[in-house]
Amino acid sequence: MNETIQLIKNHRSVRQFEDKPLTKEQIEAIVTSGQAASTSSFIQAYSIIGVTDQDKKKKLAKLAGDQSFVENNGHFLVFCADLHRHQVIGKMEKQEKELNESIESTEKFMVGLIDAALAAQNAVIAAESMGLGICYVGGIRNNLEGVSKVLNTPSHVIPLFGLAVGYPAKQNSQKPRLPFQHIYHENEYEQNGDQYLSELEEYNDTISKYYEERTAGRRKDTWTEQMGNMLNKKKRMYMKDFVQSKGLNKS
Amino acid sequence: MNETIQLIKNHRSVRQFEDKPLTKEQIEAIVTSGQAASTSSFIQAYSIIGVTDQDKKKKLAKLAGDQSFVENNGHFLVFCADLHRHQVIGKMEKQEKELNESIESTEKFMVGLIDAALAAQNAVIAAESMGLGICYVGGIRNNLEGVSKVLNTPSHVIPLFGLAVGYPAKQNSQKPRLPFQHIYHENEYEQNGDQYLSELEEYNDTISKYYEERTAGRRKDTWTEQMGNMLNKKKRMYMKDFVQSKGLNKS
Repeated sequence: MNETIQLIKNHRSVRQFEDKPLTKEQIEAIVTSGQAASTSSFIQAYSIIGVTDQDKKKKLAKLAGDQSFVENNGHFLVFCADLHRHQVIGKMEKQEKELNESIESTEKFMVGLIDAALAAQNAVIAAESMGLGICYVGGIRNNLEGVSKVLNTPSHVIPLFGLAVGYPAKQNSQKPRLPFQHIYHENEYEQNGDQYLSELEEYNDTISKYYEERTAGRRKDTWTEQMGNMLNKKKRMYMKDFVQSKGLNKS
Repeated sequence: MNETIQLIKNHRSVRQFEDKPLTKEQIEAIVTSGQAASTSSFIQAYSIIGVTDQDKKKKLAKLAGDQSFVENNGHFLVFCADLHRHQVIGKMEKQEKELNESIESTEKFMVGLIDAALAAQNAVIAAESMGLGICYVGGIRNNLEGVSKVLNTPSHVIPLFGLAVGYPAKQNSQKPRLPFQHIYHENEYEQNGDQYLSELEEYNDTISKYYEERTAGRRKDTWTEQMGNMLNKKKRMYMKDFVQSKGLNKS
């Protein structure tokens, strides 16, 4: 196992950072590493907004569900799917109507999400390779109308998630992942019901024991219980309308 | 610049591979590196299908627009957004109806896409750290009905992109990315029209020169021309209906 793979496998989220801002050079290394990722047909359908204004950070922390590490970190980035740029290109190239029809499709919405996420994960590996810690913040999707106002994003731009980066003040432990054979299928998606269920049961044992050890027995829920409890609360059901109101995922 | 960042910045797509399959250990290192990525609320809403069956690879190559490197490589992976697993959990936890409402939302569709892409980019960095080359294959989205049949994916699973991996037989050059200040905004999305346009013009020069040098003058299109030509062809407009027919992005 080489050093890069060791680094990748050693990942854990960091939610408590030292009060020490990143340097301009560090930010540049992180962002340009993001830019080096593959992009669908060279479209580069994403933008990154770095937030240093403390008032904006406070507002974002509140919108994301009062998460203090959104406010207190070395730097806070927001990754956005961005087709606004291509709308401007439509005007430049005098093909506004034709391009808008493409831009507003579900296919291009998917491209923007995938492009942004590939760039983000490159940025994460770069940050961690410099000894920094990170935490993704999906919580900004609790209220994208509010987040869009704070960041002044135009139409055809959807803020997808935040990324808190900084010097770790506290390391979390690593949660065991689904069994390899449950994530990885050979040649066909495995749909043998019994095997599928027994893999989930096996994983439930792993997770239950993990929580039990970490909490001295106070918690021992299984993964499927945890997923059931999370998914039975309908969350962010405004998303479809919001995304469409911004001109994406429409047709 | 440390070695990991050098590796990330040295990325280029590889579309021609030696005829040498990856070992089981290499595949395991790549997939488990993918699994180490962050996942939204621990949901792990993705699956990876590794394709070794040569007949299936041939079919996928054809569906992806006759791309030979889909057939000829060291290994071929397909990354899927996967909420099927959580539908099964709904049955296990006797909350089928409640969970389905969550699973079919645009929010959870986004989560599946982002989760899959974060895992994929970790897999890519792991592969490249072992001296392998990769190419993402969005072309599988040309015909997802066909791809789903080849891979036997159930409902609530969307194959998103392929990933060809292998020993590079030929290295491509690196295409210059958008200017840093055009991708990266500080505190707010920069909407100064003149500056925005001049950054695009500057980038057009860069790309035009890049093509001119590489093709001995035969090609010198700009980036915005290239984007205009690509986006004025409406592509994969079946996507919205397809994704909904699989039970995702519905509400």
